[in-house]
Amino acid sequence: MNKLATDFSPALEAQMANAVRALSMDAVQMANSGHPGMPMGMADVATVLFNRFMTVDPAQADWPDRDRFVLSAGHGSMLLYAIHHLLGYEDMDIEQLRRFRQLGSRTAGHPEYGHALGIETTTGPLGQGIATAVGMALAEKMLKARFGADLVDHWTYVIAGDGCLMEGISHEAIDLAGHQRLGRLIVLWDDNAITIDGATSLSTSMDQKARFEAAGWHVQGVDGHDHAAVAAAIEAARADARPSLIACRTIIGYGAPNKQGTAATHGSPLGAAEVAAAREALGWPHAPFVVPDELRAAWTAAARRGAAARARWLERLARSPKTDAFEAALAGPDRSALDAAVDAYKRRLASDAPTVATRKASEMALEVVTAAVPSMVGGSADLTGSNNTRTKAMRPVTADDAGGSYLHYGIREHGMAAAMNGLALHGGIVPYGGTFLAFADYSRPAIRLGALMGVRAIHVMTHDSIGLGEDGPTHQPVEHLASLRAIPNLLVFRPADAVETAEAWQTAVLAQATPSVLCLSRQNLPAVRLEHSDENLTARGAYVLKDVAGRRDVTLVATGSEVAIALEAARLLAETGVRAAVVSAPCFELFERQDESYRASVLGTAPRVGVEAAVAQGWHRWLGTWSAFVGMDGFGASAPAEQLYAHFGITPQRVAEAARTLISA
Amino acid sequence: MNKLATDFSPALEAQMANAVRALSMDAVQMANSGHPGMPMGMADVATVLFNRFMTVDPAQADWPDRDRFVLSAGHGSMLLYAIHHLLGYEDMDIEQLRRFRQLGSRTAGHPEYGHALGIETTTGPLGQGIATAVGMALAEKMLKARFGADLVDHWTYVIAGDGCLMEGISHEAIDLAGHQRLGRLIVLWDDNAITIDGATSLSTSMDQKARFEAAGWHVQGVDGHDHAAVAAAIEAARADARPSLIACRTIIGYGAPNKQGTAATHGSPLGAAEVAAAREALGWPHAPFVVPDELRAAWTAAARRGAAARARWLERLARSPKTDAFEAALAGPDRSALDAAVDAYKRRLASDAPTVATRKASEMALEVVTAAVPSMVGGSADLTGSNNTRTKAMRPVTADDAGGSYLHYGIREHGMAAAMNGLALHGGIVPYGGTFLAFADYSRPAIRLGALMGVRAIHVMTHDSIGLGEDGPTHQPVEHLASLRAIPNLLVFRPADAVETAEAWQTAVLAQATPSVLCLSRQNLPAVRLEHSDENLTARGAYVLKDVAGRRDVTLVATGSEVAIALEAARLLAETGVRAAVVSAPCFELFERQDESYRASVLGTAPRVGVEAAVAQGWHRWLGTWSAFVGMDGFGASAPAEQLYAHFGITPQRVAEAARTLISA
Repeated sequence: MNKLATDFSPALEAQMANAVRALSMDAVQMANSGHPGMPMGMADVATVLFNRFMTVDPAQADWPDRDRFVLSAGHGSMLLYAIHHLLGYEDMDIEQLRRFRQLGSRTAGHPEYGHALGIETTTGPLGQGIATAVGMALAEKMLKARFGADLVDHWTYVIAGDGCLMEGISHEAIDLAGHQRLGRLIVLWDDNAITIDGATSLSTSMDQKARFEAAGWHVQGVDGHDHAAVAAAIEAARADARPSLIACRTIIGYGAPNKQGTAATHGSPLGAAEVAAAREALGWPHAPFVVPDELRAAWTAAARRGAAARARWLERLARSPKTDAFEAALAGPDRSALDAAVDAYKRRLASDAPTVATRKASEMALEVVTAAVPSMVGGSADLTGSNNTRTKAMRPVTADDAGGSYLHYGIREHGMAAAMNGLALHGGIVPYGGTFLAFADYSRPAIRLGALMGVRAIHVMTHDSIGLGEDGPTHQPVEHLASLRAIPNLLVFRPADAVETAEAWQTAVLAQATPSVLCLSRQNLPAVRLEHSDENLTARGAYVLKDVAGRRDVTLVATGSEVAIALEAARLLAETGVRAAVVSAPCFELFERQDESYRASVLGTAPRVGVEAAVAQGWHRWLGTWSAFVGMDGFGASAPAEQLYAHFGITPQRVAEAARTLISA
Repeated sequence: MNKLATDFSPALEAQMANAVRALSMDAVQMANSGHPGMPMGMADVATVLFNRFMTVDPAQADWPDRDRFVLSAGHGSMLLYAIHHLLGYEDMDIEQLRRFRQLGSRTAGHPEYGHALGIETTTGPLGQGIATAVGMALAEKMLKARFGADLVDHWTYVIAGDGCLMEGISHEAIDLAGHQRLGRLIVLWDDNAITIDGATSLSTSMDQKARFEAAGWHVQGVDGHDHAAVAAAIEAARADARPSLIACRTIIGYGAPNKQGTAATHGSPLGAAEVAAAREALGWPHAPFVVPDELRAAWTAAARRGAAARARWLERLARSPKTDAFEAALAGPDRSALDAAVDAYKRRLASDAPTVATRKASEMALEVVTAAVPSMVGGSADLTGSNNTRTKAMRPVTADDAGGSYLHYGIREHGMAAAMNGLALHGGIVPYGGTFLAFADYSRPAIRLGALMGVRAIHVMTHDSIGLGEDGPTHQPVEHLASLRAIPNLLVFRPADAVETAEAWQTAVLAQATPSVLCLSRQNLPAVRLEHSDENLTARGAYVLKDVAGRRDVTLVATGSEVAIALEAARLLAETGVRAAVVSAPCFELFERQDESYRASVLGTAPRVGVEAAVAQGWHRWLGTWSAFVGMDGFGASAPAEQLYAHFGITPQRVAEAARTLISA
C-alpha cells in the first residue's frame, strides 16, 4: 500500500504525539475551558493514524477521494485542531489554537462542520460521530460501485469514546455497518475506562469487543500508547473485509503525572501546576504553543504523502471514462433538469387531479424527481411499503452489491438519520429516508445536527396526524410539527395534495444547505390545486389557494390534510354569505422568509382561523390575536380516522363555526 | 417454587394457546385493522408464561407484588387483550375484543396504560417496553432491598420483537440491566426473523444471543412452539442470577396456513378466507369470539394461582415489621411534610438570597425535598457533578447492593428516561434523573411516553441555554424549551433563582400524573425573589415579580436566567421614567391552567416584551401582537457565556430598547 509511510523514526513519532498533547493542554489552559484528557490520551493513536495512514491534503481539504476522519468523541476537539495545525491546514494557524473556544474563532468547543477546513462533521452529542461515519463509509462503497475504485477508494476512520459506545445510536450504527460489511470503516475506541462520573465500572459491564463481534465486525485490542502495535492493528483492520474496531487501551490525560488516569482530566483544564508537571513528565521543554521545527517538518511530511496521493488521483481522474458522471454527482442536482421534470409532472397532475394520500403522492413525485436527480438514494426504517419511499427502479444496496440506490435501514430511525447526514456530508449522494412522523422523536438528535451543519438530508415522515387512525396515540403525532418547526435551519413541509407534494420535493432537493422533513398523510386527500402554476407555490411557504371576490370576511389558514377541510368550511360559509379565503401553508419556514408585503397579502387583515390536526404552538405567530385555532390540544386516540376527526372536532362544520364566532365577536 | 403449576395437560395448554390465536385473528379481522402475526406467533410462549409462571390476580390487578408483564412489541396488543380476557379481568369482556381499535374501547391499537386493568405500560414505539421494564425490574430489586423479600418478590417478563432489539434504546437498556444484574428480568424475544419490509436478513446480521451475552445476560434459545422447551427455559432463566434472554424461534402468524412465516401477517388482517383456513389448520371449529368452557376454565385456573399467591402475600404483609414504611412508599409523597420542609427552606432562602446557578439551587432543594420524600431516587446520565443531582445522603445502587438511592445511569439519556418511567410505573419510587437540556432530544421518545401515560418522572435538564458557554451550539439548547412545551401533559419549568427552583421541585414531586422537566442554568444567577411568600408562586406558572406604581407602560415577561436581565432592563427603563413591570414565567403549562382573570392580571394590557435565550416559538401565545421578543433566532456559538449574551443581544439594554421602541410605536 503506497499510503503507508515507512520512513519515519519511532522516537520522532513519539515527539510528534507530544506536540499534540502540549498544544491541547496549553489551549485548554489558555481558554480555561475544555477537555484535555482525551487528546492527551489518544495523541499516540491519532499520531500513528495521521502520520502513517490518513490520506488528506491540507492544500485541498475537500478533495473527493480523501480519507474521512470523524472525531466522534467531539469534546476532544483540541486533538483535531492540533493535528490540523501541525499538518498545515492554512486556516488553522497558531492564533486559532490560542483562541480556542473564543467568540468567532474556528476552534469551537466541539468540532463544527464548516468552521474550519477538514472538519468532516460536527460532533459532540455522543454517538453521532460513529453513526454519521457509517453513512460516509456507505457512501464510499456505493460511489465506488458506481464510479470505480480509480475515483473512489478511501477510508473512514473514527475515534470514539466510551460514551459513544454506550449511547443507543451506536448499536444501530454498528449493526448497520456490520450488515452492509463496510470494510472501509475503522473505529479506534479510546478505551480509557473513564467517564465523567468516574470509572466506567460505575455504569457498564459491557464486553465491547464481544459486542462488536456479535455485529459482524473485525475486532482487535491494543495498547494505545504503543505506536507499533497501533500501526499493526490498523494494517490488520485494513486487510479485513469487515468493519473494524480497534480497542485502544489508553490512559486518559496521559502525560499529566498527578491527574492522568482519572476523570479529573476529562473536562477541566489541568491547571498551571499540572501543565508544568506534564511538560516535565513528557520531556517537553518548549513554551506554550511552541513546536520545534523538526517536529513541524515531520508533520508536514505526513501531509505531503496526502498531496502525492491526490496528484495520482488527479491523473486517474483525467483518464477515467466515468469522470463526467462522477463530477456531476458531486456537483449536486441539476436544477434545470429537475425543474423541467417537475413542471411537466405538475401539468399532468393538473389534469388528473388525483385523490391520493400524500405518502402515495410522494412516491409518484419520487419517480419523477429521482429520474432527474440520479444521485438520490432512498430508504426507510423498515416501513418501505408504508412510507412509499422506494421507486420502481430502485434496488436495494446489499453487502455484496453496493450498486443499488435503496437502503433497508432497519428499525433504526436514529441511525438512519445520522447515516443520511453522513451520506450527504460525503458528497455525491442526496439521501432521503422514511419513517412515521411520530418517530421523528427517535431521529431528532441527528435531524438537529443536520440542521446545525446545513446538510441536505430529506426526512420522509408519513402518517402525519390522527389521520393514521387505529394505531392510536403512540403513533399519532400531535406535537411533532411544532417541535420540528422549532429547530433552526430545517424546512418542515406538510403538503396538501399531489401538486404540493411534488413542489415540496423540488424545494427540498434544491435546498443545498438545509435538511427537510416532508410530513405526509396516510389517508387519501383530494386534489386542492386544480389550476396549474408554473411557479412553485410551496416554495413561498404559504399562498392564497382560494380567494374571494371583494373584501375577505375571514381567512382560513391550513396545512396538509386540513386544507381540504378548510376549503369545505369556506364553501359552507359561502352558503351563508360569509366570504372566506383559504390559505395553504405547506412550509412555515419558507413563508417566514418572504417579504413582509407578500406575507401581508396572503394573510390579509380579516380575522383568521388556523386549522391543523396538531397542537396550536407556533400558530399564534401567523394568526395574531383576532383568531381561532382548530386542532388538537392533547394526545390522539385509537379509532378509524374519520371518527377521530369528528371526535376531536376537526371538521368543516367546526371550522365554519369558529369563523362565524370570530366575525360576530 | 409454589408459583409453578404442575397440574395441567399439554394438550389442553396447546388449545389454550389456540384460543389466544383465534381471538387475535378474529378481533383484527373484525376491526379490519391490526397485527395478527405476532399474537399468533407468540401465543404458545405467552400461554406457557401466563399458565405456568406469571403471578397476577385479575381480581386485584394492581396488587403490589404481582409479576409485571410488558409487551414491548406493542403492535401485538391482541395477545395481551386476549389473555386478559381469558384470565378474567373484569374490564376485558368479549365486547371489548369485538371493539378492538374502536373509539372509546379499552382495546386500543397498542396497549395504553390506564385504559384497562393490568396494562403495566404503554408500548408501541419499539424498544420502549424493554427499556421501561428495566426500570420496573430495578424498582423490584431496590424495593426488595428496602422492604424485604416478604413484601417484594416478583418478576418482570417482557415479550420483545426484532424491532425492539434493533432500536438503539435496547442497547442502553440491556447494558444497564446486565450491569445492575437484574436477575428478575426475563426477556422473551419473538425471534421470527420477519420485519415489515421482509426477512430480517434485509437489514441486520446481528448475532443477538452473542450480543446479550456481551452485556452480561443469561442467554438461551428455544423453539417457541414447544411448550415444554419454553417452560424449561423460563425455569432456567429464573434460576440464573443474571437477566435472561430467551430467543424463542417462532413462525409469525402461526396457524394461518398460507400466510404464516411472512411479513403479510404482520400488520394486516388475514382476510376472511385465511381466517377460515387457519380455523381448519388449528383445529378450531368455534365461531368468532367463542371460547369453549373447558378452555375458559383452564385459563381461570391460571388466574386462581395468582389469587392464592396474593392471599399468601397479604398474610406476610400483615406480619411484616416494614408494612407501614412499604405502604407509605406506595402511597406517594407526604404532601404536608413536603410543604412544611419547602416552606421552611424558602424562609431561609429569603434571608440568604444566594447567588447560585439553578443547577446548584436544585441540589440545595434536593437536600430538603428528598429528606421529606424518602421514596425519591436520583440519578444522572454520567453528569452527576454537572447536573448536581446527588445529595449528600445518596449512595449508588450497585449490582451487589440495591439499597442505595442513586443511579449511575451511564451515558444513556434515552435508557435513563425509559427506566425512570418504569421506576415510576412500578410504584414506590419517585424517580428523577439528569442530563443536559440539549440532550432532551435523546430521551424525548421516553419523555413523550411518560407524558402520554401520566407518570411522575422528573427530568433534570441543566445547562439550559447559551449560558453554558464554550461547549458551543451542539450543547446549547435553543429550541428545546419550545419542543418540550409542545408535548401535552408535561410540565416544563425554568426557574429564575433558588426560590423558584425549590417551588418547581415541590410542584413536580406533587404532580402525580404528569412528568416534569426542570431546565436549570449552568451559570450563577442572582436571587430575584427577595420576599418570602407562603404561596408556591411557581405553581401559578407566571406571576408579577416586580410591579409598578400606577399604570404599567410595558410588561417584561421572562423565564429562568433571563428574569434578572428583565429586572435590570426595568431598572434602566425606570431611569427614563418608563414604568416596566416584570413577570416571571417559570412554567407556561401551569400558567395556561390559571383562570382568565388571573392571567389577565399578570400580563396586563400594556405592550409586552418576552425575554428568553431561546427561539420565540410558543411565546406569541402570551405576548399578543403589540409585543417584542428578545431571544435567539438560530443556533448558538462557542464562547464564554457573557460574550454570547452580548453577541446575541440578550441584554438589559436591548430589552429596554425593545420596550421603548414598542411604546413609542
